[in-house]
Amino acid sequence: MTYCVAMHLADGLVFVSDSRTNAGVDHIATFRKLHIFGIPGERLIVLQTAGNLATSQSVISLLRQRLHGDAPNLHNVPTLFDAARLVGQTLREVVEHDSAPSMTAGVDMSSSFLVGGQIAGAAPGLYNLYPQGNFIASTVDTPYFQIGESKYGKPILDRALNHRTTLEHALRCALISFDSTIRSNLSVGLPLDLLVYRNDSLEVPHGYRVEEGDAYFEAVRQQWGNGLRQLLQELPSTPASYLGE
Amino acid sequence: MTYCVAMHLADGLVFVSDSRTNAGVDHIATFRKLHIFGIPGERLIVLQTAGNLATSQSVISLLRQRLHGDAPNLHNVPTLFDAARLVGQTLREVVEHDSAPSMTAGVDMSSSFLVGGQIAGAAPGLYNLYPQGNFIASTVDTPYFQIGESKYGKPILDRALNHRTTLEHALRCALISFDSTIRSNLSVGLPLDLLVYRNDSLEVPHGYRVEEGDAYFEAVRQQWGNGLRQLLQELPSTPASYLGE
Repeated sequence: MTYCVAMHLADGLVFVSDSRTNAGVDHIATFRKLHIFGIPGERLIVLQTAGNLATSQSVISLLRQRLHGDAPNLHNVPTLFDAARLVGQTLREVVEHDSAPSMTAGVDMSSSFLVGGQIAGAAPGLYNLYPQGNFIASTVDTPYFQIGESKYGKPILDRALNHRTTLEHALRCALISFDSTIRSNLSVGLPLDLLVYRNDSLEVPHGYRVEEGDAYFEAVRQQWGNGLRQLLQELPSTPASYLGE
Repeated sequence: MTYCVAMHLADGLVFVSDSRTNAGVDHIATFRKLHIFGIPGERLIVLQTAGNLATSQSVISLLRQRLHGDAPNLHNVPTLFDAARLVGQTLREVVEHDSAPSMTAGVDMSSSFLVGGQIAGAAPGLYNLYPQGNFIASTVDTPYFQIGESKYGKPILDRALNHRTTLEHALRCALISFDSTIRSNLSVGLPLDLLVYRNDSLEVPHGYRVEEGDAYFEAVRQQWGNGLRQLLQELPSTPASYLGE
């Protein structure tokens, strides 16, 4: 499985991905799911992937291989919308190429992507690309997208996140969301890859990797877990009628 | 959709169910999913249902209709294990009866059940009955079961619940779990039906219904939501390396 979240906020973008893949619970491996494209001072395009790993890796490989030509590629498309269309088109190409009916044997070849970033001259953007290759854009009302195992980590985002949340606070929300997901689903796991982008910086950051035992993540997990237990203890006493008394 | 949780703790049992059913988002209705059988001083058997409503209602109707005969029924089976087997057998009977291939048209007729309670002379028990009619029992290690839309509300149970949790505290955990689920999935909704059973009381409580605007539930939701936001604010500051600085 996989869990990726991307946020499009007033101050910039936040991306966090886990790195666990599995083909059955007896076949677990670590693969990066956060991929960075860009030209410093001109554009940053971040891709996150979920679903069939062969499909998503082929899409990323083709996108990288084609960076140095005249045909439309992630280094020359004029807008982020065009970047998302290019990813969708490459996804369709890979799935068609790999889906000989005699070979797929019922395996789900589909992948989904989050595509976010900024190209000089326009505002930052974030797209959620479906396995069909079409996509939707984030808005002020819906400032985040998730792909993969999204449910365990959604309640905290719904409660605590809005368009005006600061990047630092949003990143902490994302870490809590990952902590909840990792605790409830074995197939989502560390390390986490994260990347924070500030509007109009047009930098191409290399992001940060949260490894097992990372001091800050451990501190956040522990303080959050203790805090939740404390909060539960402090809830008002249950009326007798609730307890059937 | 549906969300039901049942807990088997050192001091007794806690059951909470929502009451929203839907056949598409344009066809939403309220149906009780917590059903109580019992003879005061002798036995309590609580059933919670998820899945196809026609199937689960037929199972409950047959179980009620057959209470007054010599054949095995929920008022005369000697053990809770036998009660769970009887529910499973009735489920198979209903699904076979209603599943003429020419009629089901791809509709999923399956239902799942939680069956818990106590029969005089034995300890309380809790079973999670699969759509196939077979079932597993809760244990000290796994003191709760969920059916229906379980993911949004699972992290708080995994963090805060164990076999030795008090009934009152467990009930508050369940209410928080429902709050998270209701916020994230429109197809789970109020009113909630809840029932708390203390070991060896052998009472047949009628439970409590949490309606829209219930003062205690509202107070819990509000205190929890505010507390979470406060906890997030108090988390340690994010290191510069996380922010790519």
